[in-house]
Amino acid sequence: MRARNPEVDQAIPAMDPEEAHQQAVRSGLVIQRSDPLNCETSIPALKAGTAMPTAHHYLRNHFRMPTLDSASWRLTVAGLVEHPLTLSLGDLQGMPSQTLDVTLECAGNGRSTLRPPVEGEPWGLGAVSTAEWTGVSLSEVLNRAGVKPTATEVIFRGADGGTVGGHSGITRFERSLTLDEVRDFPPLLAFAMNAETLPVEHGFPLRLVVPRWYGVASVKWLTEIDVTDVTFRGYFQHERYFYEWDDDRRPREPVTVQRVRALITEPKPDQELERGDLSLRGLAWSGAAPIARVEVSAAGGPWEDAHLEGQPTRDSWQWWEMTIRAEHPGAVTFRVRATDAAGRTQPEQPEWNRLGYGANAIQEVTVRVR
Amino acid sequence: MRARNPEVDQAIPAMDPEEAHQQAVRSGLVIQRSDPLNCETSIPALKAGTAMPTAHHYLRNHFRMPTLDSASWRLTVAGLVEHPLTLSLGDLQGMPSQTLDVTLECAGNGRSTLRPPVEGEPWGLGAVSTAEWTGVSLSEVLNRAGVKPTATEVIFRGADGGTVGGHSGITRFERSLTLDEVRDFPPLLAFAMNAETLPVEHGFPLRLVVPRWYGVASVKWLTEIDVTDVTFRGYFQHERYFYEWDDDRRPREPVTVQRVRALITEPKPDQELERGDLSLRGLAWSGAAPIARVEVSAAGGPWEDAHLEGQPTRDSWQWWEMTIRAEHPGAVTFRVRATDAAGRTQPEQPEWNRLGYGANAIQEVTVRVR
Repeated sequence: MRARNPEVDQAIPAMDPEEAHQQAVRSGLVIQRSDPLNCETSIPALKAGTAMPTAHHYLRNHFRMPTLDSASWRLTVAGLVEHPLTLSLGDLQGMPSQTLDVTLECAGNGRSTLRPPVEGEPWGLGAVSTAEWTGVSLSEVLNRAGVKPTATEVIFRGADGGTVGGHSGITRFERSLTLDEVRDFPPLLAFAMNAETLPVEHGFPLRLVVPRWYGVASVKWLTEIDVTDVTFRGYFQHERYFYEWDDDRRPREPVTVQRVRALITEPKPDQELERGDLSLRGLAWSGAAPIARVEVSAAGGPWEDAHLEGQPTRDSWQWWEMTIRAEHPGAVTFRVRATDAAGRTQPEQPEWNRLGYGANAIQEVTVRVR
Repeated sequence: MRARNPEVDQAIPAMDPEEAHQQAVRSGLVIQRSDPLNCETSIPALKAGTAMPTAHHYLRNHFRMPTLDSASWRLTVAGLVEHPLTLSLGDLQGMPSQTLDVTLECAGNGRSTLRPPVEGEPWGLGAVSTAEWTGVSLSEVLNRAGVKPTATEVIFRGADGGTVGGHSGITRFERSLTLDEVRDFPPLLAFAMNAETLPVEHGFPLRLVVPRWYGVASVKWLTEIDVTDVTFRGYFQHERYFYEWDDDRRPREPVTVQRVRALITEPKPDQELERGDLSLRGLAWSGAAPIARVEVSAAGGPWEDAHLEGQPTRDSWQWWEMTIRAEHPGAVTFRVRATDAAGRTQPEQPEWNRLGYGANAIQEVTVRVR
């Protein structure tokens, strides 16, 4: 609805009403009046509890963050396709789009819990976040290009690059997915995050978002899609992001979907709490299947079911909560364990592996009861 | 922790590492490595479920949105103070700051439910949102200025202005709070929203955020604070934002704190659902006191208590949920009603008033069971 402009104080520089209006449209706001701009949020946007504010999303970079010029940027789709494509950001924004809440987690999340310690970023438990991503489904673009019958996988190339150990020259950040993986975990070519233009830190102008996989698959600053019939062996596909054990009889395995994990977000470690009913709350997620159960053990006692909030989700985390009665003063340790619908659960101790991935052991939080 | 810079591809323009690092610090991220930047989110930031992504926050403007230059912008604190102040944005950012999750709601939210209809933005139920606001407490600034003993209230002036009915010339957006109100609802002078610089739409560079009050009190584009001993009678204080009835015996009352309200966010109106256990979920809030109870009535049946998620909150909304069994196909209407700890609850029908404020009647959502 457009209403008559009121007379405004021309001495005050103001945001261009048309630009402000377009921005609100892009954000999915319900516009009541364009000038001055008045918008309500949509009720579906109130499904908070899932997406976090953008500035709180974790960041994982292998190289410096490229600042790409969206006017000259292009996405090329080449290799084993009938119609190689060169797409501008406008081309992509003009295609049918989808919006998904997706939890991304760094494969190294929890690495600092491993003993003996391993190299790599010493992540605590915070290398995980959820955002609302908007873009075009990868399959939409692949269908337009026409994947040839002999193709088996798709390589995604980011604009970021630099030197890596054991290789001369510049290595670009590149990952691949097989066509089966593309079908089972439909990726998004995302140009918006939390209803705003993708920030540089999260891959402007385009990021591949692969739901339920560890974040490494979600290539930022995407510039090239290469369809191939050869198993890709790039550095970040083959020399990193593998589970490797110090046991010659156990073959290495690639890092793929997120392992099941529950986190305690309240109370905080070492928090002081009054005796009586204590409220525990947190998150749980798994790449393999929706969360089926979250259990809490207090002070070494039996595992008891926590309450799962809302409906089971596929691509994003879920809240759980529980009330526990603390009768006596002193330190109390809570442990939390998630199990997914595929029957996967968390180990008592993190499973050590040479590069420190998938460290999803049961979390402990100790509080002090007064 | 600063680690050695890797060698990067100099052909790719990259975000300045120092700038990227500073931005992450401001966002409260836990920095694992500065170059390339690697940050985890903090566990407290995972308290999602409260703040929404910025782009989904509702917008209410009375005039065009001023685009102020933060370099020349100043906040003046004058009137009945010992030491008049002129503060730059840097001055404010250098003071002790706080971060609060605050639910803001437009006093006209739900206006479109009133019969007979009234003038004003015809808001549905979406003129409400929650964000995380960071800034300096108003009392910190007033203490530095030294409020004189004769002072009784504080006027807040925004940079936005224009013509309003019945007045010649330009009217600025101005509101006041008494010193008692300032003490009971400690306002924040916010320069950040969801851990990012305040967007123009939300009052850049500074917005007053008054917790638990209807949003009108949270003056955007704040430029002046004026301490006075006279009851302020500005247009938006005295001619608008009053409850007025068509009953001469009932005196008009100012719009102040948010009335108690519950919203159903899931399922959506007219949604088709399978027979069996239906999951209902939504939000509830009240300016007067924390939410004590949310009840749901299905198909005209008795009120039954919903489950309140997490702990009672003071300044922000709270999630509730409930599972209801639907045995028979057909339309089912759900009604939801919140009650706060002060005993306030929602009326069956919105209380009509001339300007259409505080329309907090019980919400109904009808779904179709298959």
